[in-house]
Amino acid sequence: MVVVSFPDPLLRDAVGEIPGVQPVLWDPAAGPATDARIEVVIAPYLGAAGALGHVVDLPDCRLVQLQSAGYDGVLEVVPESIAVANAAGVYDAPTAELALGLTIASLRGLPEAVRSGDDARWTPLGQRPSLVGRRVLVVGYGSVGTAIARRFNAFDVTLAAVASRARAGDDLVDAVHGIDELPRLLPDQDVVVVIVPLNDSTHHLVDEDFLAAMPDGSLLVNVARGPVADTDALVRHAGRLRIALDVTDPEPLPDGHPLWTAPQVLITPHAGGNTTDLLGRMAELLREQLTGVAAGAAPRHLVRPVVKT
Amino acid sequence: MVVVSFPDPLLRDAVGEIPGVQPVLWDPAAGPATDARIEVVIAPYLGAAGALGHVVDLPDCRLVQLQSAGYDGVLEVVPESIAVANAAGVYDAPTAELALGLTIASLRGLPEAVRSGDDARWTPLGQRPSLVGRRVLVVGYGSVGTAIARRFNAFDVTLAAVASRARAGDDLVDAVHGIDELPRLLPDQDVVVVIVPLNDSTHHLVDEDFLAAMPDGSLLVNVARGPVADTDALVRHAGRLRIALDVTDPEPLPDGHPLWTAPQVLITPHAGGNTTDLLGRMAELLREQLTGVAAGAAPRHLVRPVVKT
Repeated sequence: MVVVSFPDPLLRDAVGEIPGVQPVLWDPAAGPATDARIEVVIAPYLGAAGALGHVVDLPDCRLVQLQSAGYDGVLEVVPESIAVANAAGVYDAPTAELALGLTIASLRGLPEAVRSGDDARWTPLGQRPSLVGRRVLVVGYGSVGTAIARRFNAFDVTLAAVASRARAGDDLVDAVHGIDELPRLLPDQDVVVVIVPLNDSTHHLVDEDFLAAMPDGSLLVNVARGPVADTDALVRHAGRLRIALDVTDPEPLPDGHPLWTAPQVLITPHAGGNTTDLLGRMAELLREQLTGVAAGAAPRHLVRPVVKT
Repeated sequence: MVVVSFPDPLLRDAVGEIPGVQPVLWDPAAGPATDARIEVVIAPYLGAAGALGHVVDLPDCRLVQLQSAGYDGVLEVVPESIAVANAAGVYDAPTAELALGLTIASLRGLPEAVRSGDDARWTPLGQRPSLVGRRVLVVGYGSVGTAIARRFNAFDVTLAAVASRARAGDDLVDAVHGIDELPRLLPDQDVVVVIVPLNDSTHHLVDEDFLAAMPDGSLLVNVARGPVADTDALVRHAGRLRIALDVTDPEPLPDGHPLWTAPQVLITPHAGGNTTDLLGRMAELLREQLTGVAAGAAPRHLVRPVVKT
């Protein structure tokens, strides 16, 4: 039997019984584990990086399974002898939907319509940019980035994609550009959607130079992580650019922060993945993962494999 | 030379010179035409039905070209000896985009996010329904309806479509259902998008029975015409249903009307087609139409051909 710790009974029950798996309850955020037999740790939904240091005390631990797509800060606290897997795919559709929703809402003036509605007043929006024919750049072309691009593609836009390294294209883009090509690509875009993982090389990727390279009236959408963008630079360019953010830095954005009142800024409170079917989708991923692990297969969705020693 | 009247110089100049076409200016809304040679009338953008009665005085008029997709009220005032064409295709993409934007905004709580932002306060939205895996019914499966369905299809939904008569499906839906099948289809939907033309048979199509057949928490989107829905019934079902409207009845919706403050209602002020590239797209359609007419071809996009006498 593989002993697997779940951070809460709700998730354990949603996953249900799996042959060869013995579930135990342990929330790393609450303190050290009391069951030394744990081999696989399911991380808590929030605050994984802050809590996972405790796995160092588990002699048989060989896999940490995250409930997030991002893993910023996790690899630093989990020993290299333990593999780390993320919740790849779980957030693709909900995040991509929100990216499209933020884009259309920002371009077509939905925030203004909400405000007129709250005043119980019909106020024409005037002519707004539509999406058809626009140039859309997806920065970060992994699982979520591809899901975003696939949805934009149905809106008859001209798509381009950027990843950490240039590579061949797919059915959506002719080629995937390397991130070093951004200075050349940004001045040609109408919409730029950022969905890179947060790490040392993407911290403040969206800085003064990045924003200054975007044309007047173009739209920046950040559905990655807050620190991928320099908040002060966002405030400076708000108004000249449209800005839509599902993530901020700091997060939560403090009450009264200047970003709240900067012009042409639309903010959702990190709502990209938090949908009603999240538990079901997460349970499905965990069932698949744990069934494989119990059968002796290599874990999937590794963001860091075990370093053999 | 075919004498063609344009309702304003902006549109005339955007269309530019066309061999065989003599442009003249006439805004039917301003009164009877003074140039009896007019053979083709370009209708004004707004209020065509109220203004086009004057074409009865033009002895050589053979075509009225509308700038709208809808033609409610027009066929009643234009003599049957004159063909009527609409602006087919011009509004497909902008309207479809707004339909998707309203859908995602309503499901994911963007209005609530706008309000929190205006209070400069981070307020978690809680778990919201996503679009992936949902059942989406498009009611009205013409040019715009198909454009809407094609965009929804990229969001991995289960699509169904209804038209005035049942017919074979396409690459998006297995079959197009007849409108008489609505009572059977509505209870199974998560999202219902209405994009039928307004006529006697669609007036108040979305009535008490239609809305009562929709499941609790499902979303109605009306991007057709206001009178397609019974406003009193909308107010009654708001809250039990989510409702997103780009059109209302009456329109403009009067200040302080109960629909403004009904729960879970998002209203945009008939913004479906009014985008920054509208003039360019309209001019393109007119160039194509007028070039054909000047060359002796039959007009395209007819919503009513000439009744031969």
